[in-house]
Amino acid sequence: MRPSQRRPDQLRDLRFTRGFTKHAEGSVLVEFGDTRVLCTASVEARVPPFLRGQGKGWVTAEYGMLPRATGERSPREAARGKQGGRTLEIQRLIGRALRTAIDLDALGERTITLDCDVLQADGGTRTAAISGAWVALREAVDGLLASGALGADPLHTQVAAVSVGVFEGEPVLDLDYAEDSKAETDMNLVMDADGRFIEIQGTAEGVPFARSELDALLALGEAGIREIQAAQRAVLAD
Amino acid sequence: MRPSQRRPDQLRDLRFTRGFTKHAEGSVLVEFGDTRVLCTASVEARVPPFLRGQGKGWVTAEYGMLPRATGERSPREAARGKQGGRTLEIQRLIGRALRTAIDLDALGERTITLDCDVLQADGGTRTAAISGAWVALREAVDGLLASGALGADPLHTQVAAVSVGVFEGEPVLDLDYAEDSKAETDMNLVMDADGRFIEIQGTAEGVPFARSELDALLALGEAGIREIQAAQRAVLAD
Amino acid sequence: MRPSQRRPDQLRDLRFTRGFTKHAEGSVLVEFGDTRVLCTASVEARVPPFLRGQGKGWVTAEYGMLPRATGERSPREAARGKQGGRTLEIQRLIGRALRTAIDLDALGERTITLDCDVLQADGGTRTAAISGAWVALREAVDGLLASGALGADPLHTQVAAVSVGVFEGEPVLDLDYAEDSKAETDMNLVMDADGRFIEIQGTAEGVPFARSELDALLALGEAGIREIQAAQRAVLAD
Amino acid sequence: MRPSQRRPDQLRDLRFTRGFTKHAEGSVLVEFGDTRVLCTASVEARVPPFLRGQGKGWVTAEYGMLPRATGERSPREAARGKQGGRTLEIQRLIGRALRTAIDLDALGERTITLDCDVLQADGGTRTAAISGAWVALREAVDGLLASGALGADPLHTQVAAVSVGVFEGEPVLDLDYAEDSKAETDMNLVMDADGRFIEIQGTAEGVPFARSELDALLALGEAGIREIQAAQRAVLAD
Amino acid sequence: MRPSQRRPDQLRDLRFTRGFTKHAEGSVLVEFGDTRVLCTASVEARVPPFLRGQGKGWVTAEYGMLPRATGERSPREAARGKQGGRTLEIQRLIGRALRTAIDLDALGERTITLDCDVLQADGGTRTAAISGAWVALREAVDGLLASGALGADPLHTQVAAVSVGVFEGEPVLDLDYAEDSKAETDMNLVMDADGRFIEIQGTAEGVPFARSELDALLALGEAGIREIQAAQRAVLAD
Amino acid sequence: MRPSQRRPDQLRDLRFTRGFTKHAEGSVLVEFGDTRVLCTASVEARVPPFLRGQGKGWVTAEYGMLPRATGERSPREAARGKQGGRTLEIQRLIGRALRTAIDLDALGERTITLDCDVLQADGGTRTAAISGAWVALREAVDGLLASGALGADPLHTQVAAVSVGVFEGEPVLDLDYAEDSKAETDMNLVMDADGRFIEIQGTAEGVPFARSELDALLALGEAGIREIQAAQRAVLAD
Repeated sequence: MRPSQRRPDQLRDLRFTRGFTKHAEGSVLVEFGDTRVLCTASVEARVPPFLRGQGKGWVTAEYGMLPRATGERSPREAARGKQGGRTLEIQRLIGRALRTAIDLDALGERTITLDCDVLQADGGTRTAAISGAWVALREAVDGLLASGALGADPLHTQVAAVSVGVFEGEPVLDLDYAEDSKAETDMNLVMDADGRFIEIQGTAEGVPFARSELDALLALGEAGIREIQAAQRAVLAD
Repeated sequence: MRPSQRRPDQLRDLRFTRGFTKHAEGSVLVEFGDTRVLCTASVEARVPPFLRGQGKGWVTAEYGMLPRATGERSPREAARGKQGGRTLEIQRLIGRALRTAIDLDALGERTITLDCDVLQADGGTRTAAISGAWVALREAVDGLLASGALGADPLHTQVAAVSVGVFEGEPVLDLDYAEDSKAETDMNLVMDADGRFIEIQGTAEGVPFARSELDALLALGEAGIREIQAAQRAVLAD
Repeated sequence: MRPSQRRPDQLRDLRFTRGFTKHAEGSVLVEFGDTRVLCTASVEARVPPFLRGQGKGWVTAEYGMLPRATGERSPREAARGKQGGRTLEIQRLIGRALRTAIDLDALGERTITLDCDVLQADGGTRTAAISGAWVALREAVDGLLASGALGADPLHTQVAAVSVGVFEGEPVLDLDYAEDSKAETDMNLVMDADGRFIEIQGTAEGVPFARSELDALLALGEAGIREIQAAQRAVLAD
Repeated sequence: MRPSQRRPDQLRDLRFTRGFTKHAEGSVLVEFGDTRVLCTASVEARVPPFLRGQGKGWVTAEYGMLPRATGERSPREAARGKQGGRTLEIQRLIGRALRTAIDLDALGERTITLDCDVLQADGGTRTAAISGAWVALREAVDGLLASGALGADPLHTQVAAVSVGVFEGEPVLDLDYAEDSKAETDMNLVMDADGRFIEIQGTAEGVPFARSELDALLALGEAGIREIQAAQRAVLAD
Repeated sequence: MRPSQRRPDQLRDLRFTRGFTKHAEGSVLVEFGDTRVLCTASVEARVPPFLRGQGKGWVTAEYGMLPRATGERSPREAARGKQGGRTLEIQRLIGRALRTAIDLDALGERTITLDCDVLQADGGTRTAAISGAWVALREAVDGLLASGALGADPLHTQVAAVSVGVFEGEPVLDLDYAEDSKAETDMNLVMDADGRFIEIQGTAEGVPFARSELDALLALGEAGIREIQAAQRAVLAD
Repeated sequence: MRPSQRRPDQLRDLRFTRGFTKHAEGSVLVEFGDTRVLCTASVEARVPPFLRGQGKGWVTAEYGMLPRATGERSPREAARGKQGGRTLEIQRLIGRALRTAIDLDALGERTITLDCDVLQADGGTRTAAISGAWVALREAVDGLLASGALGADPLHTQVAAVSVGVFEGEPVLDLDYAEDSKAETDMNLVMDADGRFIEIQGTAEGVPFARSELDALLALGEAGIREIQAAQRAVLAD
């Protein structure tokens, strides 16, 4: 039995709140149970130096965790003077995943920055961030389309992500912290609207995992992502 | 007429939401109109090196702003590799103000860190942070008293803060961004429960101000702080 | 009785030495008793990026303390790899105060940097720095006028600063380190030639202060600043 | 046809040179074609602070690339003042993978640091680093066993890694730079001696990949890793 | 007797291996006994900001030591976040020495960066680096001449370097680590093809040295450098 | 003729002012013409980690330049966030030179830090710093002897330094900035009371120098250092 009493293939309560803050071109609070991540999309009319003058755009992400988003306070990265390896790894993943969904040439010379800040952590912050960031990105692109800044939609697919893992010998979907901290295997999946993989990252925590476990985890994740994508569409349809 | 249609001595809508996040010993979302700051108090059983072995405690603060809390995205301090001068100045002010309210000897060898993170900025973030941090600190100390970790209450007064300023020639209370960005004089006041000053910081923006203006600003601020302190007590009484 | 045997309203011996070093466009050693700060004004024909192409100038300040300016050696900030919060706060104050005195449009596209380096510290280094920096700035602007680089004087008022505080229950002027380290309230005042406030920063050290104390401190400070301004004018007249 | 004329399931020429440098407890130059990585294992009789006094050991890795290991010179990370996100991500992967293979309790209070420095890069440096680091780790542990410092072998499995990817529509093994820079999908696999997964990291470069492609890549990678593990055993048997 | 059984005026086995890596315009592994330094020369079509638009070039050097190049592992400078004083001193020396040999005007607007990375250290790494870097620089300039990018040879002299020192009271040439770590005096000499001095750096380690000792060291060094220059010419003639 | 009208073997006006600041255990302003360096010696009852518990002491130096000590303002190192290579090189030289003069075992577990801050630069700041730092060190050690903290004098020799160089083809002593910026060869000499070398650092600026030039420079430097040492003794005798 899972600590949260969920079935193995059951997501946590999932909620996307649009317009959570007022300044950003896209702003979504995403909640997977007690995990809460604020995702904003900021549109700026410039691109990084390596893209200048090419007429194409850029999508990038930054990730942060409020110091007391976690059970024990963790040091503020701004005060320590650098982002840790985990932070850099996560924000590289978010940016890479969303760039797969967008046609940068069609975006034109603008940068969309996705800031994903964890207000409260309870496992699965990086996959929540990706799922929320896609909604914020969709909002921001819709704004550009509505204002006429863009004539055609550069965002050609939908992106969502979820974690799966082996907890007490059983494959489970959408691990919370109680599961994640004891999982034998931890895997993050990012998929598009057609059920194809954008990213798959699986790590053995202590014990290596067999191909059969991998297959079971992939099946759980695929189903979970379909549910998340339905929720993304629902909130955008409101 | 103020851009927000408020009277000169009128605060913005003020709200303290307790328990906004679940992990911290104190956690308050404070809102002054559209300014929203998440204040958490974290209790840790250790003190900084300069206090070790003296049996006394420490209270400190850190301040941050989410990159898109503002109208234009500002660079993430963690990514830039250092906290800016403004950030350091504000968090030093918050920590200093709250240490005035607490008996560090009575706190014992523990540190309470007040993290004030601006989710949305519309002027007056530092005074909102002080007012919210006091509520979070009160919650955290109440927890220590309730658990028996502390026998007597070390928090001996109530602290609140507000900004006042001269906008279009007239002294006004609790400036929002539209006023703050054009104010001729900007002043932050921090006071205790007896209406005495903990901190007063007044800055001429362009035009120096006369003693008579100072007196008018102080009167506005005192009245405003009494209202804020009433709201703090009300939310704690719930 | 004050440790220095001074009356409550008595400044320390005050001295401005012009031309203390030879390279800078303005160079003044300011001494308030044993506090000695070297203030130089450097004129450069460029402005920071945010002002480029607007035809206006900039005035900024940097503050430093030699490692052994103090009773105990403090670590060199250059070796530690960053300026501390106190340093940043002070140099922001100096720059802000002096910008109030000058018409940046009339200055033209040039930057004047005021470097205030404490050779020996005995309390009141930031207010000494402001008072000295104004003389160095005056020298530098006079040089621009003399050479014809400027046709009209952009420096429209005189700026001086002093500290006041409550020591052993009594308001006193111009605290030295022996007083400052035990003061109950510490306040820095910056004023212009007309006795108006440019900045007021008062901090309760432990015990909050009443309005009546504030009034007494302001009165002491105003008188002290008039004396300092007279000394500034005298040294410039030499 | 692959640029290197290899069959889809063909590794590059693979070479492990033991004792490449003389000071380290383990020192291996690993070559996958033109990719050359020097892997050293350093044994030190201390552990990081979070493990002190627990009687258990630690294995960690650091990764670096000489500035001109690549076709265009890349800036030296030591001169830039920080390790980039890619570097941190890779060294976290190497350390995590090798910790899976060793019993840290049995290692005792010592740290083994695996330094993986790329002398020449031609694709696949991270997987080469893992494969080489395992040999260096094996050497270092053998030294501890030979000297009697360890009584039982804490290294309980063999670790190797390889990259696979989709190049011009076809799944291929062990991509060199010419392939890697154009691959549609890029995947790194780390496996143990029993063919179980330690890590799987797959990234769509542009086009998401289907489950069938994933299966084909996994099959290629498993076979490749068996070959690499045979080569590791052969060089250790010499 | 020297620990290595060498005569006082005897160099260690000296070897220059050209083309050690494939990407750089010049690439030489230089070995003085067990000291091994990889020197690469990278040609880039741009100059540092202070030289822009002047039509002249730049030659600079960077030095690094792999963490386990030494008997005890030393922390990786990239991980520590800065290059140490010794590193900066050495790379400034290498760059300065090689700039003496080249006509920067004749080089045109390009930068040649000499990266000197110590793979294994056994004393004398900085002088080995200079001697090897000159060969790599020669290779890079020859490439520019061969391709027609340069019409005339800007490299007008040959540069080599060696260390000399007083070990157990006797002047010796080319100290290895066993000698260097106990030497009373340590001196590095850099000379041109005409036996003139480019740099001389002598340091008393504990006991100051007399003029007569200086003369003896200079004589040893001059002879040693002639041998090294012959070896440089021999390897380039191959 | 030298720009300063001096004879080739003539020092600039030389002055040591003792007690220039009041807090440090040794405090000397040294002036070589317009070059002015404040040298303080700070005694602290602790040693760096690598010396702890060995009963021996440490002498180290830090060097800094006020931003406007020079003709053009140079950026403040504390603000840039690191000390430059030149600074590190100079402070390593100063520390090394003075450690040669003192018996660290006899000093006991204390650190003496020599802070050398250039108030005004006109060439030769590093050699002035060494010459001044020795006087400050002598003062600090005399204080330890006078207070009985030390029973025997650990400072066993006198240290002074000077620069020599080839200016317009002629060897000259004690170069000022006008000469230094055009010198063909630049050499810094540090010697003890017996005329032996502690450090010799000669650099060809553009044109390599012959042995005969070296001999001429050494002779000039030796005579200059004798004069400086006489001045050091004279000021200490006052």
